[in-house]
Amino acid sequence: MTFQLHPRLQQDCIELGHFKLCRLLLLNDSQFPWFLLVPERPDLTEQYQLNKSDRIQLINESCYLSENLAALFNADKINIGAIGNLVPQLHIHHIVRYCSDPAWPEPVWGKFDAINYTDDKIQKITQLLNPIINNYE
Amino acid sequence: MTFQLHPRLQQDCIELGHFKLCRLLLLNDSQFPWFLLVPERPDLTEQYQLNKSDRIQLINESCYLSENLAALFNADKINIGAIGNLVPQLHIHHIVRYCSDPAWPEPVWGKFDAINYTDDKIQKITQLLNPIINNYE
Repeated sequence: MTFQLHPRLQQDCIELGHFKLCRLLLLNDSQFPWFLLVPERPDLTEQYQLNKSDRIQLINESCYLSENLAALFNADKINIGAIGNLVPQLHIHHIVRYCSDPAWPEPVWGKFDAINYTDDKIQKITQLLNPIINNYE
Repeated sequence: MTFQLHPRLQQDCIELGHFKLCRLLLLNDSQFPWFLLVPERPDLTEQYQLNKSDRIQLINESCYLSENLAALFNADKINIGAIGNLVPQLHIHHIVRYCSDPAWPEPVWGKFDAINYTDDKIQKITQLLNPIINNYE
């Protein structure tokens, strides 16, 4: 069984690249810098289903991403969540939050309908994230 | 600087015990089996501020807790979140979800006012969780 991205994630997100374990996606919602890590393992719905080395890899990639997002976007807070009530395939949200954003201080899930990015803005975020992806060791 | 539990967590939660890194709390809201892991390190707001070995310890304790909660409560889903927009001290939510619960499929944060447990129910959950805490290696 090989890994395949869930059709809903494929539809709602833009693929930015890969770390060692996870695929990095950008949620196509211009209201928040909102990223997803999806472990490229088939049939996972919960983090505890990852084997021991994949768990360590996940927390490392999550921390690496979060720390870089905080710096790149000058975030007030990073919100991390593994929910999956609607899309069962394991995916971990990493959302840049600002005290001035439209949902603050509440969580953003299910709050607003997505407002898609322009192509120009997607290109800018891709360029911003590229060094982060390429420099991952 | 020593670790001290944030007063808001102290107020809203019941302490169940400790793993190696984290204190385990039960949120005093009888609507959902809702647990928090709080790394006992001072001045943390983000997971990436943990050092390398603490990060691994955190994911291990989180997976251990989640897997046991899923079994003990016969969960349909475990929701995990590190948000901290209101209470800055790093704490990681672990919430047992059912397709039949009052918030499903939405996340539970900020959804309902808490309905406190009875003392009897707190004692039952404490007894249920005790072996999980005591058997952690």
